[in-house]
Amino acid sequence: MKPYKDLSPTPRIIMTPGPVEAEPRVLRAMSYPVLGQFDPEFTDLMNETMGMLRQLFMTSNEWAFPVDGTSRSGIEAVLVSLIEPGDKVLVPIYGRFGHLLVEIARRCGADIVTIETEWGTVFSPEEIAAAIRTHQPNVLALVHGETSTGRMQPLEGIGEACREVDALFVVDAVATIGGVKVATDDWLIDAVIGGTQKCLSVPSGSAPITYNSRAEAKLLKRKRIEQGLRMPGEDGEHEGLSALIQSNYLDLSQLQDYWSPARLNHHTESTSMLYALREGLRVVLEEGLEERFARHRVHEAALVAGLEAMGLKLFGDPACKMPVVTCVEIPSGIDGESVRSMLLAQFGIEIASSFGPLKGRIWRIGTMGYSCSKRNVLLTLGALEAVLLRHGFELPAGDALHAALDAYGV
Amino acid sequence: MKPYKDLSPTPRIIMTPGPVEAEPRVLRAMSYPVLGQFDPEFTDLMNETMGMLRQLFMTSNEWAFPVDGTSRSGIEAVLVSLIEPGDKVLVPIYGRFGHLLVEIARRCGADIVTIETEWGTVFSPEEIAAAIRTHQPNVLALVHGETSTGRMQPLEGIGEACREVDALFVVDAVATIGGVKVATDDWLIDAVIGGTQKCLSVPSGSAPITYNSRAEAKLLKRKRIEQGLRMPGEDGEHEGLSALIQSNYLDLSQLQDYWSPARLNHHTESTSMLYALREGLRVVLEEGLEERFARHRVHEAALVAGLEAMGLKLFGDPACKMPVVTCVEIPSGIDGESVRSMLLAQFGIEIASSFGPLKGRIWRIGTMGYSCSKRNVLLTLGALEAVLLRHGFELPAGDALHAALDAYGV
Repeated sequence: MKPYKDLSPTPRIIMTPGPVEAEPRVLRAMSYPVLGQFDPEFTDLMNETMGMLRQLFMTSNEWAFPVDGTSRSGIEAVLVSLIEPGDKVLVPIYGRFGHLLVEIARRCGADIVTIETEWGTVFSPEEIAAAIRTHQPNVLALVHGETSTGRMQPLEGIGEACREVDALFVVDAVATIGGVKVATDDWLIDAVIGGTQKCLSVPSGSAPITYNSRAEAKLLKRKRIEQGLRMPGEDGEHEGLSALIQSNYLDLSQLQDYWSPARLNHHTESTSMLYALREGLRVVLEEGLEERFARHRVHEAALVAGLEAMGLKLFGDPACKMPVVTCVEIPSGIDGESVRSMLLAQFGIEIASSFGPLKGRIWRIGTMGYSCSKRNVLLTLGALEAVLLRHGFELPAGDALHAALDAYGV
Repeated sequence: MKPYKDLSPTPRIIMTPGPVEAEPRVLRAMSYPVLGQFDPEFTDLMNETMGMLRQLFMTSNEWAFPVDGTSRSGIEAVLVSLIEPGDKVLVPIYGRFGHLLVEIARRCGADIVTIETEWGTVFSPEEIAAAIRTHQPNVLALVHGETSTGRMQPLEGIGEACREVDALFVVDAVATIGGVKVATDDWLIDAVIGGTQKCLSVPSGSAPITYNSRAEAKLLKRKRIEQGLRMPGEDGEHEGLSALIQSNYLDLSQLQDYWSPARLNHHTESTSMLYALREGLRVVLEEGLEERFARHRVHEAALVAGLEAMGLKLFGDPACKMPVVTCVEIPSGIDGESVRSMLLAQFGIEIASSFGPLKGRIWRIGTMGYSCSKRNVLLTLGALEAVLLRHGFELPAGDALHAALDAYGV
């Protein structure tokens, strides 16, 4: 048998738009022994996690819980549960993850309408509101923070337009939750999907979501009790039911029964990921949401100051830049992948490339959650400068860290 | 803000049919810092995990990887990817998890045919082969170990019948993998789903699967490159494509690209769960598959001897008993839930109830993976005896542990 070595991952500074470094307290939480899924001690932890998620999502929604899968499992759970085949779904696209919403919604049988804007820009809320009035969709699905381009879509005012036409407003806040304000209730968002492996600094594998009673009303019309759980003689079908949700694993009407006091058996909740999420939320709430958002802005400013002092050009419209992702144009003549490889191999620092039309054109540097620290920003700037010089890029050596230290007021 | 306490789970002896206690080495592995998903060091760990999964599944299949979700995400990934709407799917049902296969297959748009047998029994392979010849399904979906009844379906001979009619043979081995032989290649199984939180003793949240080239051929006919990953001008559609897979998250044609050297971006692999699965597989392979299966039989025998010495009656046909789950009839006049609660609250030991028609009729005691040990079996028997006496059940006090110690040859 081939010997597989003891696990011993090399320490990394992870400055991508996710996954980023996990909080040490979260890593420790995952090392605790498991509890049974219906052990009252475990269901208490589940309930506490729901309570903390409500605070994170700034909502009084009853339903706020994780889906057991990576972020896109949360997106698909919301879309497959809320979109009935033939429903009209409007998706404003300004980057790769808008396309992902289309991709998933199409597989749910949606009649899809898109509006698109150039990568590197976003829509004005008025443009989106106008499209809502024109197309009268059943669901509007919108990305809050588009990591592929580093842009953030303003969301205020869009919820009102959705209510006018009785559309459900679904927001993918995978990349912003915990790093930037996501005001679910104030912004009249009907369902929000958050991500763990970015600004929450919990490893990938859990997708916190929340949705309100408008969304729940649609779910309940589609709900069936699982066949293997019915008592003899019970039938899953009755008058007035809407179309069956085409996934069992991602069926929110079943998931909410599992997360309710009824604890109706569905999947086996991922104990260790629940421990991790609970601990990550404790860390976030102990820091304070506003304080955490402010911290992200401080380190973004230092990173940007350093990059610009190096003579690098930021990609995209600065008016809608995500505070937690900074996109940098790869200078002409420089091999972007070679720079990334040298950063990782020699310095243990990871930054990201991008997708589709931006592949090979930009680097993406995240400042998210636990990775968003003075130490990481300074080490990354110093390493990037050295690697760029090594690649023959002309830059004023030493200026980047001066500028970043200035930004920090050192 | 309500103070949420430091995580500090009470230690438990978990003798359910899953989730069971996790291997301490696995818990430790999850506490290591994360690596980026495309970090070569991480992709090496992914490849090593695939190699170990092939050994676990006793297969030379190219594809053996985890789906990022709990066991039923793996089941749904296989079914939604292999079942095209309108396909005929044959499901032999002998307990709750057969109904789950029906539930999921129906949501995939299958034309479903079932055969059923009484809970507590299984089918002969000949009965299933005859049904295959009669119904000529596109897919046969079958549970290997049915934890709801504690029965195990013999699988030899069924694959041959599937090949005769060109059906794909899909096996849910969630409850048996790592505890009982699952000979994917020898038994001509086209796709197998394993579970982590049972005989592998890795926490729930990862679903290892494998499938062969017959299954892959069907996937490839349905494959589309995700819209957000296409280069400008590329189109996902072309002549000869079969129906789009109705899930994105669980689309095996995309997942296998992510797990291939191409590493085409899909979800963000759950780093910590991958660490956990890799470590769990190392533990299994270090013990040795045959040795591990033998260990499970030893502790089952001691448990059964103890239970019978207490005057308890085992549920179901002994000829097809699962070696890793023992179902016990709740004696008349005894409140089964009260017994379970006292075991948990006073002794820190968890055993399970069952579902549907067996709810309140049987207890289910698992002897799985790390939980399957002499210590756990003896402590469980001693505690159960005390709790039953406390509930007024007449039994020959002391005999259970005598019998178990005899079985162990002490």
